[in-house]
Amino acid sequence: MRLRRSKSVYVPGFKAGGIACGIKSGGVKDLSLIYSDLPAVAAGVFTRNQVRAPSVEYNQALLNRGRPVRAVIVNSGNANACTGPQGMRDCETVAQAAARALGVDPGEVLLASTGVIGVPLPTGRILHGLNHLVNHMASRSWPHAAEGILTTDLVPKMKSVEYTRARKKILIGGIAKGSGMIAPNMATMLGFLATNAAISPAALQKALSRANEDTFNRITVDGACSTNDLVLVLANGKAGNPRIQAGSGDYEAFVDALTTLCRDLAFMIVRDGEGATKFVTITVNGARSRAEAAVLGQAVADSLLVKTALFGADPNWGRIMGALGQAGVPFDPERVDIAFNRMPIVRNGHALPKASMAHLRKKMKCREIEISIHLHQGKAVCKTYTCDLSYDYVRINAEYTT
Amino acid sequence: MRLRRSKSVYVPGFKAGGIACGIKSGGVKDLSLIYSDLPAVAAGVFTRNQVRAPSVEYNQALLNRGRPVRAVIVNSGNANACTGPQGMRDCETVAQAAARALGVDPGEVLLASTGVIGVPLPTGRILHGLNHLVNHMASRSWPHAAEGILTTDLVPKMKSVEYTRARKKILIGGIAKGSGMIAPNMATMLGFLATNAAISPAALQKALSRANEDTFNRITVDGACSTNDLVLVLANGKAGNPRIQAGSGDYEAFVDALTTLCRDLAFMIVRDGEGATKFVTITVNGARSRAEAAVLGQAVADSLLVKTALFGADPNWGRIMGALGQAGVPFDPERVDIAFNRMPIVRNGHALPKASMAHLRKKMKCREIEISIHLHQGKAVCKTYTCDLSYDYVRINAEYTT
Repeated sequence: MRLRRSKSVYVPGFKAGGIACGIKSGGVKDLSLIYSDLPAVAAGVFTRNQVRAPSVEYNQALLNRGRPVRAVIVNSGNANACTGPQGMRDCETVAQAAARALGVDPGEVLLASTGVIGVPLPTGRILHGLNHLVNHMASRSWPHAAEGILTTDLVPKMKSVEYTRARKKILIGGIAKGSGMIAPNMATMLGFLATNAAISPAALQKALSRANEDTFNRITVDGACSTNDLVLVLANGKAGNPRIQAGSGDYEAFVDALTTLCRDLAFMIVRDGEGATKFVTITVNGARSRAEAAVLGQAVADSLLVKTALFGADPNWGRIMGALGQAGVPFDPERVDIAFNRMPIVRNGHALPKASMAHLRKKMKCREIEISIHLHQGKAVCKTYTCDLSYDYVRINAEYTT
Repeated sequence: MRLRRSKSVYVPGFKAGGIACGIKSGGVKDLSLIYSDLPAVAAGVFTRNQVRAPSVEYNQALLNRGRPVRAVIVNSGNANACTGPQGMRDCETVAQAAARALGVDPGEVLLASTGVIGVPLPTGRILHGLNHLVNHMASRSWPHAAEGILTTDLVPKMKSVEYTRARKKILIGGIAKGSGMIAPNMATMLGFLATNAAISPAALQKALSRANEDTFNRITVDGACSTNDLVLVLANGKAGNPRIQAGSGDYEAFVDALTTLCRDLAFMIVRDGEGATKFVTITVNGARSRAEAAVLGQAVADSLLVKTALFGADPNWGRIMGALGQAGVPFDPERVDIAFNRMPIVRNGHALPKASMAHLRKKMKCREIEISIHLHQGKAVCKTYTCDLSYDYVRINAEYTT
């Protein structure tokens, strides 16, 4: 199947928009919208943090009813989390006002928030901005929507994929945000995807969960899983394809395309990780199970000592051994192999001769680092994606205030 | 019981020393010794990292034999970890040479190493330095020993406690090192303690494990548990007290004194945490069990977002809620109370009125921060001690090289 990837987003039957409604200062965009001309099938994956924003609960309840959806409203600058019973009431207020502005049913509106925790949502500003937002939505306005959902991100994140199957052109487009508070296990970021495919609700949910597993669920910037994070996907069926059902060939093609899109967006989040200077892929191979490989990969990715060594361009494999040994997964240290950018440095748990260190140090200066770990215990493999830890991570997170 | 604490160390029947043998450059001390005139009862607690330095294995095997001990040899600048079969051979070589220089049996010598991982131990330099080290040991030379075990530490860590029981004066003195790679679950640091008490081996081991649990096991700088870490204690019986047995009143008095010493040394490690500008106590109260309180406390202490907020003097309780929610321990977010330096800021999971925030921000500028979390789920409590994360942590760990 030929998959075309694009930096711009256009999905037939969808409109998007983003405006500044005054939650953030300085006229920065902080309210976004995705709207479907037709009732759309919807699915979502949500944060596994126990402390969950009311918008997360709200969406899950709405999706559980299994009814079509028309719109997603997203604000940045305020997470509406830890805001007590008022938080859920504010969700309802925003959904109702958005439904009125769009001429749809309140039960057809999904919600998301990102920003500061514990401050009541300024619903007045959002309500005041909604008509303006609706008036300015357009099928080519995804870049505005991508801007309106950002917090500490330096760049908007937007991507689309396209493929043709049985002469029907399927498009999937999406926007995402995330820069800090990024860790595996969903979602620790926001992602909003839209497709013109016709697909059953069950197949869409299954496809999203599968795509998510190897992409958004495998990235970590700082090991922090947030209270608000979610990925939502809407499918409006405009492509006119035979409705995709789970398990079919059409389904596999759709999952492939969706996974590519999610991976592209997930990588954009890591590359924009707070203070990041390097994109790091950690492959744990030869594990007894994928789950164990994932735990070990995350332990290495989240080790402050490994992350700071990467920032210092130091091939400090001892810190990798230390992080692996601490992860709680049994393995034999005497069988571990480690390579940096395909150059072997550790075999059977100890260093290869020093000769290549000078060359390796040079290699470590590049922006893309691949750490390959082989446990020689089984056949399972898992990749984790992360970035280094720099002065700027500390600066950003010491200054960003409640 | 009156306990006298002192910054200097003198324990009857013990000598200590520290010299520069050339593992580190610039004539910095890197080889230390603690020696007992009499055969001493010994006990130890060791890292729970799966990747363990040969010195850790070596000591455990030796202590398991339950025979008296005469000396501990410690080098810094090289961890002798991940060094393959050569690592254990190097342990034996150093122990044999030290035994010869001291005129004791090789089976009476304990070992410890700290520093870079994966580089063979420069045994030649150590062997060359041993006679000099032995010639310069003295009962008042603990400060030299405290210096010789340091790596990135800024200050040597040394302390003693003294109490009298049934007219016998019991002293316990100790030195410690640790600055980065500090996390709970033993040991992530080195500690060497000596006492003149007469105590049974079983009681000494039990006392050390108990003292360790609330002190060295409850500190974290960067969540990294190292390959080499251990605390050893030697007891030579010179006080002439009736031999302490577990469970007795004498035993409880000894545990109290030992715990005080371990806590003082543990706090010195946190205060000297790499780049630390604040000493932070996290109390989790109202948990269902101490173990759960410990997991939650550590999750907050190790959260990069919490640590950087503390560096920025920002009372960002939302990040605390996020860290708690991610820890894998069930609790009701709607019942959580949080206070900073005894000023309540969160009640029942959401913020108290904003009025006090300005005052709180000022309070957050001080060097000692107390975060109190109450879950209202049970009666268990656990304290965790940590520091903030500053630019200097990143600098130190990006520059410290393999």
